[in-house]
Amino acid sequence: MVVALAGGVGAARMLAGMVQVADPASITAVVNTGDDFVLHGLHISPDIDTVTYTLAGLHNTETGWGRTGETWAAMDELATLGGEDWFRLGDRDLATHLFRTQRLAEGATLSEVTAEVAARRGVGVRLVPMSDDPVRTRLQLRPDAGVAEAGREVAFQHYFVRLRHDVPVASVRFEGAEAARPAPGVVAALADARRIVICPSNPVVSLGPVLAVPGIRQALSARREDVVAVSPIVAGAALKGPADRMMAELGHPPTVVGVAQLYQPFCATLVIDEADAGSAGAVEAAGVRCVVTATVMDTPARAAALARVVLGDG
Amino acid sequence: MVVALAGGVGAARMLAGMVQVADPASITAVVNTGDDFVLHGLHISPDIDTVTYTLAGLHNTETGWGRTGETWAAMDELATLGGEDWFRLGDRDLATHLFRTQRLAEGATLSEVTAEVAARRGVGVRLVPMSDDPVRTRLQLRPDAGVAEAGREVAFQHYFVRLRHDVPVASVRFEGAEAARPAPGVVAALADARRIVICPSNPVVSLGPVLAVPGIRQALSARREDVVAVSPIVAGAALKGPADRMMAELGHPPTVVGVAQLYQPFCATLVIDEADAGSAGAVEAAGVRCVVTATVMDTPARAAALARVVLGDG
Repeated sequence: MVVALAGGVGAARMLAGMVQVADPASITAVVNTGDDFVLHGLHISPDIDTVTYTLAGLHNTETGWGRTGETWAAMDELATLGGEDWFRLGDRDLATHLFRTQRLAEGATLSEVTAEVAARRGVGVRLVPMSDDPVRTRLQLRPDAGVAEAGREVAFQHYFVRLRHDVPVASVRFEGAEAARPAPGVVAALADARRIVICPSNPVVSLGPVLAVPGIRQALSARREDVVAVSPIVAGAALKGPADRMMAELGHPPTVVGVAQLYQPFCATLVIDEADAGSAGAVEAAGVRCVVTATVMDTPARAAALARVVLGDG
Repeated sequence: MVVALAGGVGAARMLAGMVQVADPASITAVVNTGDDFVLHGLHISPDIDTVTYTLAGLHNTETGWGRTGETWAAMDELATLGGEDWFRLGDRDLATHLFRTQRLAEGATLSEVTAEVAARRGVGVRLVPMSDDPVRTRLQLRPDAGVAEAGREVAFQHYFVRLRHDVPVASVRFEGAEAARPAPGVVAALADARRIVICPSNPVVSLGPVLAVPGIRQALSARREDVVAVSPIVAGAALKGPADRMMAELGHPPTVVGVAQLYQPFCATLVIDEADAGSAGAVEAAGVRCVVTATVMDTPARAAALARVVLGDG
């Protein structure tokens, strides 16, 4: 059994590689829900959906979010009504949020709904939210952010989508994390896994919320020797999203060494890209074993090759 | 100024006739919200939407509900997920519910949202929900109803759509009505109108909830001489829906005389169809003036002709 700690697109690609080289049923993905939010009354879980759509082969490879073969009648009409259309919900994607919201209203847990959707989508990986309790990533914008929201705290999607993560961040917090419990089975899966993979996701706002759920960081630390992370930073930049910029803003070098320093307490091995081979020594000096390989998963074959390395079969 | 008390399709046709013969801005429609419900987390107001779509020329004339030019990607996908797809929400129609739910969550009242949607749709009639407070029509099914829900109380849409109103009803109540207040302006509009029109809607479950809001029935009674109703029953049958059957089940004759008896306390004039001309004397014996004309609004011209009669211009 293997556990993967997952954010959005990078994690989805890592998992799509892993299912090529391991039995999907042997993989548990613990997914960030700090990005979850309610809009139009609908409970939206962006990272769970990205992972589910990707593993179901339904993801939109052009946009990097949402569904393939999507239509936009509801959003176009919502724009006509003057509604909140900054978070684009395709007609097919909407069904996922309708289903989730209705099931939650009926008393189902987020774990249960996530499993139901995964099963209906034919996803073999066991997908588990980090917690069934609400944890909400919130970002304090710097006073000099140059937007109307400068100096204020905003919800993650406000920062990420509405402001296009193009504003400096002063601090990040995970609202509700103190009271949240790991979803059923998460701690046991971490204890039992032969290997724990930290997918190449944003260390601050994708892995951060997962680690903020009491018990998960401790469970990870206890398995430190078997924890392998893939750096989301390649040659000083994030492949996607604001990880590099955000790390720098929060005082962490936006490099593989910065990632190593952040993960060192609970992670024994960091996989870095060949582009960063020159930093391998510095990574090891930070107290983390370093593996150098091709980490850019721009084809399924490269994702599978990386998965072999990460799972110790490469 | 004219006020129309409105349910769904029959009322929408009546209003579509009225705007042909009177300035839309002179018409206030007070619309039943007893059918409102929450599904998938969305606040759905079926009668408000039917009236709005019809006056905007966006109504689906084939189905009698929903939007014209509609697509069904979200519902098809929801069926794939095993979700609740018995209440069909088209992709374009969904936008209305997304907008309403978001605005309500932001603190807007149902009156405000209804006015916003009407304005965006170019509807000139002033549309007002009967109340901004929740009133929910609930139906007690007879023990011999022959369905799993027999002997139980169900929500209106469960009865109307899910069970296709094909089950006998023992009683009806309007949950929340006691505590509800008429929406802002409703009582004043009733007091000031030169004429008040009770549209040809179901007397029990369309007009019933409106009358159950404290203050509305009293305001109507005070203007009895100027209240004109159009019978929703023609030749002993409802043109659409279960009004005839429901009236009989609840002890009211499913005839124009039964309608006259129900409306007599607050309505001085009942307009009945030529098919019921032979009942005019019995209607008047029930204490209501009787006007006989063509009431079946199967063309815009016939709706306009009926509107002229109802508004006293015919």
